[in-house]
Amino acid sequence: MEEQGGVELMNPHIQSMEEDVLYHLALGSGSHDLKQMFGDVQFVCMGGTPQRMKSFAEYMLDQLDIQLPTGSQLLDISERSHRYAMYKVGPILSISHGMGMPSASILLHEVIKLMYHAGVQNPTFFRIGTCGGIGLQPGTVVVTEEAVDGTLRPYLDTIILGNVVSREAKLDLNLAKKLVDVGKEQDGFGTVLGKTISTNDFYEGQGRLDGAVCEYTEEDKMAYLHRVSQKGVTNMEMEALVFAGLTHKAGIRSAVVCVALLDRLKGDQVDVLRTDDWSQEMF
Amino acid sequence: MEEQGGVELMNPHIQSMEEDVLYHLALGSGSHDLKQMFGDVQFVCMGGTPQRMKSFAEYMLDQLDIQLPTGSQLLDISERSHRYAMYKVGPILSISHGMGMPSASILLHEVIKLMYHAGVQNPTFFRIGTCGGIGLQPGTVVVTEEAVDGTLRPYLDTIILGNVVSREAKLDLNLAKKLVDVGKEQDGFGTVLGKTISTNDFYEGQGRLDGAVCEYTEEDKMAYLHRVSQKGVTNMEMEALVFAGLTHKAGIRSAVVCVALLDRLKGDQVDVLRTDDWSQEMF
Repeated sequence: MEEQGGVELMNPHIQSMEEDVLYHLALGSGSHDLKQMFGDVQFVCMGGTPQRMKSFAEYMLDQLDIQLPTGSQLLDISERSHRYAMYKVGPILSISHGMGMPSASILLHEVIKLMYHAGVQNPTFFRIGTCGGIGLQPGTVVVTEEAVDGTLRPYLDTIILGNVVSREAKLDLNLAKKLVDVGKEQDGFGTVLGKTISTNDFYEGQGRLDGAVCEYTEEDKMAYLHRVSQKGVTNMEMEALVFAGLTHKAGIRSAVVCVALLDRLKGDQVDVLRTDDWSQEMF
Repeated sequence: MEEQGGVELMNPHIQSMEEDVLYHLALGSGSHDLKQMFGDVQFVCMGGTPQRMKSFAEYMLDQLDIQLPTGSQLLDISERSHRYAMYKVGPILSISHGMGMPSASILLHEVIKLMYHAGVQNPTFFRIGTCGGIGLQPGTVVVTEEAVDGTLRPYLDTIILGNVVSREAKLDLNLAKKLVDVGKEQDGFGTVLGKTISTNDFYEGQGRLDGAVCEYTEEDKMAYLHRVSQKGVTNMEMEALVFAGLTHKAGIRSAVVCVALLDRLKGDQVDVLRTDDWSQEMF
């Protein structure tokens, strides 16, 4: 049995605001009829690039067999913001969150407020992204069991008014397990459940040897990767922790699903670009 | 007298790599003649959105009176990456870094490596962005004297192989002062020098009352803003600290110049979108 109810904000100030401008979405509670536009949303899917989230929206249009009226096409609802791209396909929002936790955090704050203003009941949020796998075949899909930082703490730290505030970063484990089961039934590629490290840096933060700065050896790197692997970490990316932290705080059910582009035990460089535009290939 | 010399990498591993794929720029040392393409770069200018950095490139084309050959136009060099946009205008690179320090950090690592591969001599890096001012008229330009985190520490913390590594985040103060002087001579809007707080969150991280989550009062917020203001902080944004930290580590001269979109002592909401597409207005 799932709880029913609108998205509640953990912020008493919003109610007393005359208008709420969702600046980075190019939407506002005064300028747009958010209930009419978004009241039927059930699933919010987020991923890195505008291009990928457009492809995902087109894929869902096809999968759900939704016919747009003749002479109309999918529109990037947030185009005027020049920041995130947002597409709506029936009950699905497909939105790009950019790279890294701060970028994803801005989006999460504004999309959670959007759900509130639109009166959406009990939505589910997904991050669908890419990652580096640890000991996984490239192409493997990882569903996140628990999101942790580079020291393996499952907490989101935010400096608020000069103090570090640590919040639990929890995903919905039942949902994660369902997603793994669905993956096992359907596909020819592997789907696994595992811990995900979210970092604030792609190079040194993920133990790569190929950044502009590197002050450790290959042995140091491999020892770190093996150490975290033994503790259940299957992949590294840059957004899951804030995604888990903010959705949990807002009482929103959420899951993170990422495809591994490479096996970090075998290398650091991402070279899928050389084959072709992989984001087109995915959907 | 300025030091002359190529950009050196603080990473001994790069030299032994057969090829270096700059994945998020859609460039590579094997696939592109980086010396030929970028060897003459002197100034690297970074800012948040692709749109703004395209406008800046077009503005520089005009200001430097550079004529592109008939039938040619500015090209987004990194278009295939779907992540950052990059334009080259004579000695200037104009690149978008997205929102937040992790996104800017990926770009900095790859652009510093690009400078190295291209054999660029003694480049200067600028971040040109937007910010919230503290006690400043909207439209005021802030040149950063020192970049600090939300606790006012001028250090960039990165979790590397499971440990927090703190690095000095230093900008070139002489360059900053020169920029303030240039601003004073030329414009009708104010230019000031001040400390800049870089945060990992736009809402709670900057003491806003209008995020999806807020667990403090307006009095708490104002007390924090006045406290940091008394310590010399003039503005808040989301990238200067990593920009200062990584350019300083790489020995690259750098400066941060941001326009204040609002005065945080008077409110939280950014509503310039309502007037018109402000990024078009800027250049």
